Amino acid sequence: MTTGFFGDITSIDYEGPESRNSLAFRHYNPDEIVAGKRMEDHLRFAVCYWHNFVWPGGDPFGGQTFERPWFGDTMDLARLKADVAFEMFSLLKAPYFCFHDFDVRPEGANFAESRRNLEEIADYFGTKMEQTGVKLLWGTANLFSHRRFMSGAATNPDPDVFAYAGATVKACMDVTKRLNGENYVLWGGREGYETLLNTDMARELDQMGRFLNLVVDYKHKIGFEGTILIEPKPQEPTKHQYDYDVATVYGFLKRYGLENEVRVNIEQGHAILAGHSFEHELATARALGIFGSIDMNRNDYQSGWDTDQFPNNVPEMALAYYQVLLAGGFTTGGTNFDAKLRRQSIDPEDLLIAHIGGMDCCARGLKAAAKMVEEEVLSGFVEARYSGWNSSEAQGMLNGSMTLEQIAAKVEASDLDPSPRSGKQEWLENVVNRYV
Amino acid sequence: MTTGFFGDITSIDYEGPESRNSLAFRHYNPDEIVAGKRMEDHLRFAVCYWHNFVWPGGDPFGGQTFERPWFGDTMDLARLKADVAFEMFSLLKAPYFCFHDFDVRPEGANFAESRRNLEEIADYFGTKMEQTGVKLLWGTANLFSHRRFMSGAATNPDPDVFAYAGATVKACMDVTKRLNGENYVLWGGREGYETLLNTDMARELDQMGRFLNLVVDYKHKIGFEGTILIEPKPQEPTKHQYDYDVATVYGFLKRYGLENEVRVNIEQGHAILAGHSFEHELATARALGIFGSIDMNRNDYQSGWDTDQFPNNVPEMALAYYQVLLAGGFTTGGTNFDAKLRRQSIDPEDLLIAHIGGMDCCARGLKAAAKMVEEEVLSGFVEARYSGWNSSEAQGMLNGSMTLEQIAAKVEASDLDPSPRSGKQEWLENVVNRYV
Amino acid sequence: MTTGFFGDITSIDYEGPESRNSLAFRHYNPDEIVAGKRMEDHLRFAVCYWHNFVWPGGDPFGGQTFERPWFGDTMDLARLKADVAFEMFSLLKAPYFCFHDFDVRPEGANFAESRRNLEEIADYFGTKMEQTGVKLLWGTANLFSHRRFMSGAATNPDPDVFAYAGATVKACMDVTKRLNGENYVLWGGREGYETLLNTDMARELDQMGRFLNLVVDYKHKIGFEGTILIEPKPQEPTKHQYDYDVATVYGFLKRYGLENEVRVNIEQGHAILAGHSFEHELATARALGIFGSIDMNRNDYQSGWDTDQFPNNVPEMALAYYQVLLAGGFTTGGTNFDAKLRRQSIDPEDLLIAHIGGMDCCARGLKAAAKMVEEEVLSGFVEARYSGWNSSEAQGMLNGSMTLEQIAAKVEASDLDPSPRSGKQEWLENVVNRYV
Amino acid sequence: MTTGFFGDITSIDYEGPESRNSLAFRHYNPDEIVAGKRMEDHLRFAVCYWHNFVWPGGDPFGGQTFERPWFGDTMDLARLKADVAFEMFSLLKAPYFCFHDFDVRPEGANFAESRRNLEEIADYFGTKMEQTGVKLLWGTANLFSHRRFMSGAATNPDPDVFAYAGATVKACMDVTKRLNGENYVLWGGREGYETLLNTDMARELDQMGRFLNLVVDYKHKIGFEGTILIEPKPQEPTKHQYDYDVATVYGFLKRYGLENEVRVNIEQGHAILAGHSFEHELATARALGIFGSIDMNRNDYQSGWDTDQFPNNVPEMALAYYQVLLAGGFTTGGTNFDAKLRRQSIDPEDLLIAHIGGMDCCARGLKAAAKMVEEEVLSGFVEARYSGWNSSEAQGMLNGSMTLEQIAAKVEASDLDPSPRSGKQEWLENVVNRYV
Repeated sequence: MTTGFFGDITSIDYEGPESRNSLAFRHYNPDEIVAGKRMEDHLRFAVCYWHNFVWPGGDPFGGQTFERPWFGDTMDLARLKADVAFEMFSLLKAPYFCFHDFDVRPEGANFAESRRNLEEIADYFGTKMEQTGVKLLWGTANLFSHRRFMSGAATNPDPDVFAYAGATVKACMDVTKRLNGENYVLWGGREGYETLLNTDMARELDQMGRFLNLVVDYKHKIGFEGTILIEPKPQEPTKHQYDYDVATVYGFLKRYGLENEVRVNIEQGHAILAGHSFEHELATARALGIFGSIDMNRNDYQSGWDTDQFPNNVPEMALAYYQVLLAGGFTTGGTNFDAKLRRQSIDPEDLLIAHIGGMDCCARGLKAAAKMVEEEVLSGFVEARYSGWNSSEAQGMLNGSMTLEQIAAKVEASDLDPSPRSGKQEWLENVVNRYV
Repeated sequence: MTTGFFGDITSIDYEGPESRNSLAFRHYNPDEIVAGKRMEDHLRFAVCYWHNFVWPGGDPFGGQTFERPWFGDTMDLARLKADVAFEMFSLLKAPYFCFHDFDVRPEGANFAESRRNLEEIADYFGTKMEQTGVKLLWGTANLFSHRRFMSGAATNPDPDVFAYAGATVKACMDVTKRLNGENYVLWGGREGYETLLNTDMARELDQMGRFLNLVVDYKHKIGFEGTILIEPKPQEPTKHQYDYDVATVYGFLKRYGLENEVRVNIEQGHAILAGHSFEHELATARALGIFGSIDMNRNDYQSGWDTDQFPNNVPEMALAYYQVLLAGGFTTGGTNFDAKLRRQSIDPEDLLIAHIGGMDCCARGLKAAAKMVEEEVLSGFVEARYSGWNSSEAQGMLNGSMTLEQIAAKVEASDLDPSPRSGKQEWLENVVNRYV
Repeated sequence: MTTGFFGDITSIDYEGPESRNSLAFRHYNPDEIVAGKRMEDHLRFAVCYWHNFVWPGGDPFGGQTFERPWFGDTMDLARLKADVAFEMFSLLKAPYFCFHDFDVRPEGANFAESRRNLEEIADYFGTKMEQTGVKLLWGTANLFSHRRFMSGAATNPDPDVFAYAGATVKACMDVTKRLNGENYVLWGGREGYETLLNTDMARELDQMGRFLNLVVDYKHKIGFEGTILIEPKPQEPTKHQYDYDVATVYGFLKRYGLENEVRVNIEQGHAILAGHSFEHELATARALGIFGSIDMNRNDYQSGWDTDQFPNNVPEMALAYYQVLLAGGFTTGGTNFDAKLRRQSIDPEDLLIAHIGGMDCCARGLKAAAKMVEEEVLSGFVEARYSGWNSSEAQGMLNGSMTLEQIAAKVEASDLDPSPRSGKQEWLENVVNRYV
Repeated sequence: MTTGFFGDITSIDYEGPESRNSLAFRHYNPDEIVAGKRMEDHLRFAVCYWHNFVWPGGDPFGGQTFERPWFGDTMDLARLKADVAFEMFSLLKAPYFCFHDFDVRPEGANFAESRRNLEEIADYFGTKMEQTGVKLLWGTANLFSHRRFMSGAATNPDPDVFAYAGATVKACMDVTKRLNGENYVLWGGREGYETLLNTDMARELDQMGRFLNLVVDYKHKIGFEGTILIEPKPQEPTKHQYDYDVATVYGFLKRYGLENEVRVNIEQGHAILAGHSFEHELATARALGIFGSIDMNRNDYQSGWDTDQFPNNVPEMALAYYQVLLAGGFTTGGTNFDAKLRRQSIDPEDLLIAHIGGMDCCARGLKAAAKMVEEEVLSGFVEARYSGWNSSEAQGMLNGSMTLEQIAAKVEASDLDPSPRSGKQEWLENVVNRYV
């Protein structure tokens, strides 16, 4: 008994690379073993609620294009939306989903009613999850859409908004825990400024640091065992967001003593907006020890805003999963598609087709990355490149046993004249092209 | 007795805003009192050695355009260069200058000879400084132009380069101290990567952290009392530089325990390349407590590389000095022009004209900023905007005396429904336009 | 008898530069003579309908922030909106306004009803215009917000949409003529593509060329004497728009034989998105003979989308008006503010304050530009720079009387060795700073 | 008898996709038939002289990294350089090469000597070409590196520079014709401006239009049968270049009556700098009928300058060759690598490895594109999407037989209400991923 939204589509199966069936997987084969683990367990796909079931297809210059029977603001429609959502999760064989409070329940007349609506829908979710086996990758609170948050949530100049935001996060984390969510995400879309002229940045950073400490304390208090994740984004909607990129978030965590408590959920599109490659952000998180999860959706390189498109460039994705594997793979994290259809893709099947394409590309990227890791051509090169540092003399410069003066004396005494060696970038790029 | 390079120009004086004399100041009046301090003591101008006396006018698609009698590679020419440089510093009434080792001395046949050349020129500088009263704002080492540094200095995969770089910094800091430099700057133009494929980022960050600790230790050992400054830049020449922006540098300093030892030298052009406004970087440094000094040269908003142009937009500069004043003004820092002539500006007088224009704009920016600070219209608005946080209840959320649960309980109990207030951005922008 | 929307604000007057009154002009003094003409007649300000009276304050991550009594979808509310709009135009002493059909009337159940609604409101406007003296700078059709236009209007793959768009433009031009509009604008926000994969660019360009010819023919047929203007924009909402920038529009007009019929309405924000400065686009239009009108609203240099902010940087604006004056000033064109409040600026008075600030900056920019033109320091330099071309020999190379062979022969015969001369960019920038 | 520069590398062969040999082709197999034509005849590879044999590895912050025995300024070294160059062309089995005058000969003491040097080297090339079978894809003049061109060549304010540039182009075209070059390219790196303040754009455009007409006339006069190509680039070195992008060049050609005489050589990196995708520029040239040739080198998406890297992303390249094939493939054009090694790639073999990788990627891209064309899934979709235009009624709107009034009347009469159809972007992207 289905809602009928997806017509007569009842199953989407793996049919192999030669398939021409738009509604079949060509590469994503959940049970296939890659580097000793099932593909599904590597990729840990999640489908998001907001873009798929809430967004009407609007953009800054146009309104709704999608016609969805569940659009509206009642609990009944919220349940219909959930019915279709879980149908889609199941059709796609996606093991996980993600949501904001705002996506799943009507706004109540006041906070308490909003919270009760959320809890009621969470119960409904619980049943659905049991029926379908779909799990919750992460929950999160929408602290940016309502006009009360227009000047920020934790960083608002009005302490009442800080309080309201805190209560909202508490409610969302309660529900996330109840549904056995594996992570809890904070994205600070309004935690930043529109103009420095009305902003006290030091104060706002302190508010944000305090807020995150409150959240972490609460997590421990209730015994929520998921990971707290911050999702960096440099700007949009706000001119500047404090969680600009991974390195900025790291400095923030250090400042407020949270670097062992909080990790990052990295999105390709946000990396691009911040002037980085996706693999840069992943490598940075790995180097700084705060890698958590990913949002695998791309931005258009020629657009200066967050296009949240489904990924489709396998060589780029292979480099991303290569970093994920080097970081040890996902633990509580996974591959979420924070991706939306183009607003002209108005057929119901487009929702499925877009995810199938994205999941297939991830599968190809993962397989290529696994092979790169396994064959060690790349990692072997890197190791050899730095091997000069293995000598005890070189280590002496790093471990504090030599002073700058001693180093300088040695340079003169040995008449040191280092010879540069080729960085071999083109060769390394050719090596990558063996795999993708 | 002059070199004659600047022809018959013997003096550049303040003539007031109505002057049409290209070789006079219209706004920079060193002794004029602004906010209780001489303008000169506020702005602390420095002229840089590299762009003015070393750069031949080349760009990636063309060679030398400037014809300078001191171009060449001998100690005699290095002294002629110094003669002209100090003439220019004096003509411009600039109290300070800045230099890299590489700018002022010929490269020797080996490290020791390079060092000796540097020291010999430093002696020559010493005499010149005494004669002219010009002081050293900062010294620095060029760890990026020679091919030995092509893969980085502190972050090089070859420990010999790390050692060579260390010896170089030691020599430069020795000279900086000898010349009573007020700061020592590190700009890591090659401390980053061209491709992640050949890079071990964690290792390189550790190398860089160690290197900076060696430098700081040495500073204390020799009793150098200047400030150590890092100059953030996101990229160029390197695809990614580890000192990306102020927030990134802050995280780096925290990671390696240096946030109380090192501050930042912020450049407008580098801010722009990193996707920020100049005032953003200044405000960030202020909020994080690491503001040091500035490079007051602009980038072209339509060019994606470092154009290092003389500043000319007074309203933008006023906002920058507003941040400087809010940070308490410069202590050891100052206003350096890391600016170069356009390569078509081949007349000797262009060197003077460009600086005069930049200094005049700084003077206007400073005066406007001082008035903004004094009249408190902007700061008063900001204070009022956050005044809700002054209540003891609001403070309770910040000082750790309330838990998330308590906050949430209060939200429900009081049926809290915050009302947004206008951010007044346009009004604030109009207020700024009263001053500029 | 007013609507009361603006409270007790009854008049906004010129009070001079020293005024601290937020609701007074400090620089815009309509009757003041600048370069032989009233300031009002130079600037020809227009206030736009859409951002001020239609936009609810939403952005891609948040909904309505503005609370306006006229929001809704009835003819009564449309009239209330008009009442407030004309109150605002009058308060601001703005001589002109601009609108899209979509801004001013409710969408009807079908095309005919939409047209009738438009005509009814146009009658209402007519009365208001007579009462207030406010005139129509330009009318335009919204061919981008409704889902029927999601894949383009003139460039739609469906000819029915082309027809619908044509009928819409006819209706809008009829109304524009009736209201004595001085121009008719076409902005092709959806005339472009989201992906080349589903696009036949040659076909779409031909459709667009035909459409514009239909419009021009109709203009002549009905005797509309205003100027047809295209407003270039490179992207957003669409990934690529065919009216990318001024030079692209020029090529399009040439291709379809319209370069003498159509001119451009240039927006600062769109120039920035296209990678140009505003003055570049103006200078290009001037050089190509298609300059028409301007939208004087800025984009944030750090944001990659159209921020449509009120202008506030006088030196930049002076360079823009300098180009306008060099082009001979406006004929039918004017200075429209296609600018919106920041969504946090929710007070009614913010609408007034924002325009006052923008108009004041325009006045300052104009006055500076007029002085630059008058004193001829800049233009004199340019003339002298090219004066070598005045010789008959040089002219011979340009007028076709010399062949490449003859030129080459002369180079060898005269052993020609041209000496470069300084471009004097810094000096010229200093000169500009005398005026701003 | 070789120069020995490439050591014992004597041959680079096709070994198939499974090869792990760094010095073998894995995909480029010249004689393999793709879509009815030899791969070599499709791709028409050219190796460039400048980046491979002239560029020392410098960047704006560092000097020479490459050590090449032919660096220097004598005719003997120029011949040694040619020896190595033709060795490399042969090793790579590249059928073509490209050069600027400046790359191949020492600058003479005056124009005549420079020309004679060029001709002498051209003779040497002639012999080499006969020996090796390597052909000339295009010749070009370097009108940007020497300081005489610092303010432009054709657009210089000094007519003597215009003349010098004309003589230079004549000499280069003579040599190109002598060597049976198949095209002649003009890249206007200095044809633009640094600041509008010293620039008369209308005048400069006219100079440039005249210059190009002189060149075209000369081509016909001497019976050169190659294609004249303009290479668009938006900026760098110059702030703005008049040949900004394909659409801009088209408008320029129309303005000066050259649209049937001149075509474009499109570079991926330049497309990116102009804010476009490579396939956009190709599709535009195809739509406007001016497609000529390509420079297949990529820019880094995160760098704002021309990085001229070897291409390595096959899916992107497949989309480019798809456009090339839709345009009918190359006629006189080809695939040039205007690509340079990273400056850290200092081994001689890096030159070979980089080209091998690039050529292999092109081969993969071409094969994928050929299959896309052949299977017609994409083109079939596009055709169907616009099929509504095939009706005679729809054609009536395009062919001028209907007026705007008639169209509008029909809309009302038929109560037209167009239904949007899905643009199917995600499905199309999935289809592309079947091929790459």
